[in-house]
Amino acid sequence: MKRFFSADDVANIDELVQNAIQIKKAPLQKSDLGKGKTLGLVFLNSSLRTRLSTQKAAQNLGLNTIILNANLEAWTWEFEDGAIMNGSTVEHIKDAANVLSQYCDIIGIRCFAGLENKEDDTSEKVYSLFEKFATVPVISLESATLHPLQSLADCITIEEHKPENKKPKIVLTWAPHIKSIPHAVGNSFAQWMSKIDCEFVITHPKGYELDSKFTQDAIIEYNQEIALQDADFVYIKNWSSFEEYGKILPTEEDWLLTNEKLNATNNAKIMHCLPVRRNVEASDEVLDSENSLIYHQANNRTFAAQIILEKILESDGQA
Amino acid sequence: MKRFFSADDVANIDELVQNAIQIKKAPLQKSDLGKGKTLGLVFLNSSLRTRLSTQKAAQNLGLNTIILNANLEAWTWEFEDGAIMNGSTVEHIKDAANVLSQYCDIIGIRCFAGLENKEDDTSEKVYSLFEKFATVPVISLESATLHPLQSLADCITIEEHKPENKKPKIVLTWAPHIKSIPHAVGNSFAQWMSKIDCEFVITHPKGYELDSKFTQDAIIEYNQEIALQDADFVYIKNWSSFEEYGKILPTEEDWLLTNEKLNATNNAKIMHCLPVRRNVEASDEVLDSENSLIYHQANNRTFAAQIILEKILESDGQA
Amino acid sequence: MKRFFSADDVANIDELVQNAIQIKKAPLQKSDLGKGKTLGLVFLNSSLRTRLSTQKAAQNLGLNTIILNANLEAWTWEFEDGAIMNGSTVEHIKDAANVLSQYCDIIGIRCFAGLENKEDDTSEKVYSLFEKFATVPVISLESATLHPLQSLADCITIEEHKPENKKPKIVLTWAPHIKSIPHAVGNSFAQWMSKIDCEFVITHPKGYELDSKFTQDAIIEYNQEIALQDADFVYIKNWSSFEEYGKILPTEEDWLLTNEKLNATNNAKIMHCLPVRRNVEASDEVLDSENSLIYHQANNRTFAAQIILEKILESDGQA
Repeated sequence: MKRFFSADDVANIDELVQNAIQIKKAPLQKSDLGKGKTLGLVFLNSSLRTRLSTQKAAQNLGLNTIILNANLEAWTWEFEDGAIMNGSTVEHIKDAANVLSQYCDIIGIRCFAGLENKEDDTSEKVYSLFEKFATVPVISLESATLHPLQSLADCITIEEHKPENKKPKIVLTWAPHIKSIPHAVGNSFAQWMSKIDCEFVITHPKGYELDSKFTQDAIIEYNQEIALQDADFVYIKNWSSFEEYGKILPTEEDWLLTNEKLNATNNAKIMHCLPVRRNVEASDEVLDSENSLIYHQANNRTFAAQIILEKILESDGQA
Repeated sequence: MKRFFSADDVANIDELVQNAIQIKKAPLQKSDLGKGKTLGLVFLNSSLRTRLSTQKAAQNLGLNTIILNANLEAWTWEFEDGAIMNGSTVEHIKDAANVLSQYCDIIGIRCFAGLENKEDDTSEKVYSLFEKFATVPVISLESATLHPLQSLADCITIEEHKPENKKPKIVLTWAPHIKSIPHAVGNSFAQWMSKIDCEFVITHPKGYELDSKFTQDAIIEYNQEIALQDADFVYIKNWSSFEEYGKILPTEEDWLLTNEKLNATNNAKIMHCLPVRRNVEASDEVLDSENSLIYHQANNRTFAAQIILEKILESDGQA
Repeated sequence: MKRFFSADDVANIDELVQNAIQIKKAPLQKSDLGKGKTLGLVFLNSSLRTRLSTQKAAQNLGLNTIILNANLEAWTWEFEDGAIMNGSTVEHIKDAANVLSQYCDIIGIRCFAGLENKEDDTSEKVYSLFEKFATVPVISLESATLHPLQSLADCITIEEHKPENKKPKIVLTWAPHIKSIPHAVGNSFAQWMSKIDCEFVITHPKGYELDSKFTQDAIIEYNQEIALQDADFVYIKNWSSFEEYGKILPTEEDWLLTNEKLNATNNAKIMHCLPVRRNVEASDEVLDSENSLIYHQANNRTFAAQIILEKILESDGQA
């Protein structure tokens, strides 16, 4: 593996998930694999789970980690090719990516959607530029449109908790929020679900359709009640409108997920990538129920990161 | 040891202090004890000594360390149970504590008193919630009311410098300051002094009484001059009023500690937890004198943290 | 080696450069040298290359690294001796330096020129105070007047790319900028160039003379076109006026470095310490040309740091 930006970079997701589950049983088995090598983690945005789980994964592999909170600790980046840099940006991403590649064997970068320029976000302007100019493998710690380490952790969690002898029904349900939130987790979950064996339904108010590029294999059901019927997993997540890019649209129905709404499910397991706005996206009773997998997902972030780092380290020097 | 929040979590302080002094002589003797394990250090407030000494202690034990400047690098926390999170807070402490526990074998957290809500502070709302929801041992890096790693380091320092054949007289003297400062260091020092063999006196202007919960075994002497007589150790520290919670009260006397005032002592050793407002809390001549132990205290922070981490690692898996 | 503040702390620069080139070939050869020891990196200013390359160097030597973003993560420092600290500063540099020395075997510190008080900057007030009060070896991560790790990396880069059988002509050319920039890189480069075998020319508009203390051995040529003739290396860098301290002066000529201007050189290699304001200091075509060494310089920062850390570790305990 030479990069990890989306599900398309994985040859066999089922195998990857099984590998991760093996790592979880014995996380220190390859504790020398990364010896003498360095992982750089670059954050253009806030991070808790990604920041900690990826460090933990690296430590399990004996990899050194160097962290850069780019805006806080270093310099504001310029993203325009050919820019005359006489404004507020201090360093071109071209230079930053090239320089970071001098010190790191693998670089992870987090660069959220700005939600101000749809073309920039959907073209993955920042991530693409960084990867273009980096000379070492790059992994996404969440980009403008996707969050593959989260989705891989979600796949691991689903594999661990799926019903036996039954193709699981997995429902991604839009949830309310008070701020404009990027589409990366929703898009990414849809992309990965299209590649595993499941019935995958997305439910949201009209106007909240995700980018069809990622949801073309999904069933879209605007009625949350219908969507939830017989669900084995319910994944809760807010995102802003993609059509009216970055906007929060008025919604008539109450989309807050409650235990009552879950009655129609097949005793569904509850998922959320966190952080979650409690009692806005979903009620405490849902998030804290026995069926909640939210901390299992967080835990699996470590093993998702670890299998990706392993694959990259093991393919080092190979075509 | 399963937690370290206050002196009450220590079975035998004298033994702990002796253990720490042994570690100081050979800090790398258990450099494999923490191998493959992770210490998380979570800061809701600024930190220099605690940040560095605890990392150093972890490194001495072969523990990996993951640091989270929660507000700077991650998300603002919500502390209200059942809150409808439609405001400025992004992640509930319940989720943060649970998630951090997925990546860490031990978590240290710093959460100062806000000094705005006495009930929240004295009930240790933040620390208690964090510990409640964490699923691994938690250690205090200074909480709203106590600073146990500082006090343990202070006990080590006193043990190293106490007069022979004499019960030491230890005076905690209030000092002036320009800002409202929490009570944690003062409370904590009083708590630990009540458990070691010494004569312990606290002196401060009227109105600056600390929480009597921590000072019930101490002698309170409002006259600084009388308090300092024959002191072997003088611990300088400011705190705001506890009664008029968080307020700075007008004081008539001059409480700045000077060499002249120290003449009445038994050639007393000088202590301060740092940072110190020089020439406001104490004069340069006092802080820089041969009797000053301020850097010894800072140094002993490492060994205080190390013995606590050791005790927790060694009791791992035990009841 | 007991300190690394300037070229004057190096007995033999040529030998140091050769040592660094050997390290580059086998960076992990002394991976146990720093075992059990701690490098503290203290940043009063932003940093990317220095932050990462010095960590990388430390990791190559098995040194633990502790980072302190002093203003972000800890306390604002006071620099005045004898100050009555009743203002916005919380900790005296005297205490910070002494305390950091308790946890670290070597300390690196970055403290840029403030450009507001020439006397403070030229006297290296902050760096000198820190070094005075630290009790362990201190290395500069760029101080008010010098940036020795950058200059050493530059010397390594020049050694690797210099023409055979010819004393290289090296030209430091001032470049435009929109902000007031310190003199440290320019001063430092001039200082190191005066100590290696080369023809060294500095070109800049009148009024932009660097501190003559560092440039006394250099040829100053105000005409950029003349200066560039037959140059083997062209080092691009902006700095503000030293005479009219920290000011940006009006310039009549166009000092932006372009390929056209480079025609007169001996197919010169291009150098810049980064970050660079592209198309303000130099055009993209210059910075991205085959002759550009800017990423080589960044890469050599690791080996510059590593040889300095090695020298300090190896002289540990020696006079």
